[in-house]
Amino acid sequence: MKIAVLGTGAVGRAVAAKLADLGHEATLGTRDPRATLARTEADAMGNPAFSAWHAEHPAVRLATFAEATQEADLVVNATNGGVSIDVLTQAGAANLAGKVLLDIANPLDFSQGFPPSLFVKDTDSLGEQIQRAFPDVKVVKALNTMTAALMVEPGLAAGGDHSVFVSGDDEAAKRMVIDLLTTIGHSDVIDLGDLSTARGTEMLLPIWLRLMGALGTPMFNFKIAR
Amino acid sequence: MKIAVLGTGAVGRAVAAKLADLGHEATLGTRDPRATLARTEADAMGNPAFSAWHAEHPAVRLATFAEATQEADLVVNATNGGVSIDVLTQAGAANLAGKVLLDIANPLDFSQGFPPSLFVKDTDSLGEQIQRAFPDVKVVKALNTMTAALMVEPGLAAGGDHSVFVSGDDEAAKRMVIDLLTTIGHSDVIDLGDLSTARGTEMLLPIWLRLMGALGTPMFNFKIAR
Repeated sequence: MKIAVLGTGAVGRAVAAKLADLGHEATLGTRDPRATLARTEADAMGNPAFSAWHAEHPAVRLATFAEATQEADLVVNATNGGVSIDVLTQAGAANLAGKVLLDIANPLDFSQGFPPSLFVKDTDSLGEQIQRAFPDVKVVKALNTMTAALMVEPGLAAGGDHSVFVSGDDEAAKRMVIDLLTTIGHSDVIDLGDLSTARGTEMLLPIWLRLMGALGTPMFNFKIAR
Repeated sequence: MKIAVLGTGAVGRAVAAKLADLGHEATLGTRDPRATLARTEADAMGNPAFSAWHAEHPAVRLATFAEATQEADLVVNATNGGVSIDVLTQAGAANLAGKVLLDIANPLDFSQGFPPSLFVKDTDSLGEQIQRAFPDVKVVKALNTMTAALMVEPGLAAGGDHSVFVSGDDEAAKRMVIDLLTTIGHSDVIDLGDLSTARGTEMLLPIWLRLMGALGTPMFNFKIAR
């Protein structure tokens, strides 16, 4: 499958590398590929320069948001929530139309410092905002409730014995994402229902951030014990 | 220990009965004990009439909010979040002063139907609102992230292999609640930090409600897999 992963931060890199390992044609989308490749410093989040990462993951292509999206069968939103709508606009509504969009972004607002608050919540969600802005794409929210390493290697915490949530309005799109998550190694995929249930998973971020502080590591995940 | 449990709904009943079983002097606080005992119908949430429940739990006393609180060593807020401040006002700031308040309430707003939204969130919490309204009480938020039956019998889901969170500004008060939770049988008590971390646990309610819908049962809990 041809998969566009929009965003070259920790989440985009982890997901694109894993999808390439699984045999997919993974293309990372970025605003300006030449500028992304020219950077030699770690980014603000401490991720190594993209060129250093890319040298170790040559199977992952780099392209503009629009080029990556145009030829993709599946699009992954791995951007910061605050720029997601802007990035998807650059990717192009026509390029997105009819496709499944796996939305991993969270509506984090760092403008008041750490811990961030959420710029949309409770009676709406970023997933729903994206769906309304791009009505012809099939948004499926998933993976936004854990750190990037666990998204693609669930076994790194508790032997993989934890849960991942899926929200979306299109059943076939959700099935495609559930199959992908299962292939990656997620053993407990919980279909929460329609896209409005993304309000619940996005609102997990506040406790996730406090747990990271209390536990001193991001290498944990929610398991629904039952 | 003398413990006042404010609220005679499912949470108050479950907690008071368990504390009495553990040998504590548990008193349920209610607005008007005579009216509470006179009810013969199930309440709006489907709980059996209080008198029927009370006949099976004679060790639990019933008193007004103020009477129950006045003589208590520990006070438990098991009321609906929307009325918590009002109930605590009836309990009396002077009666609460210097005591530990275990706050189980959630700021659920059912005015727009189901699922409810939260009337405070993200940059504030009900726990913090209560602390500000009653600065002389030591608020500890805990147990608000699971159904009443699991609060007091954690083994009823996944053999008890799940987590409970504690938030509070007073270390000794938090220690008292952590000891109580351990005595009840909670095997993974996570101290999240100061009371502002209750924003995180109260914001678990939206996904809890969707999980109840997706799983068809409230008998599940969050485990932090790590």
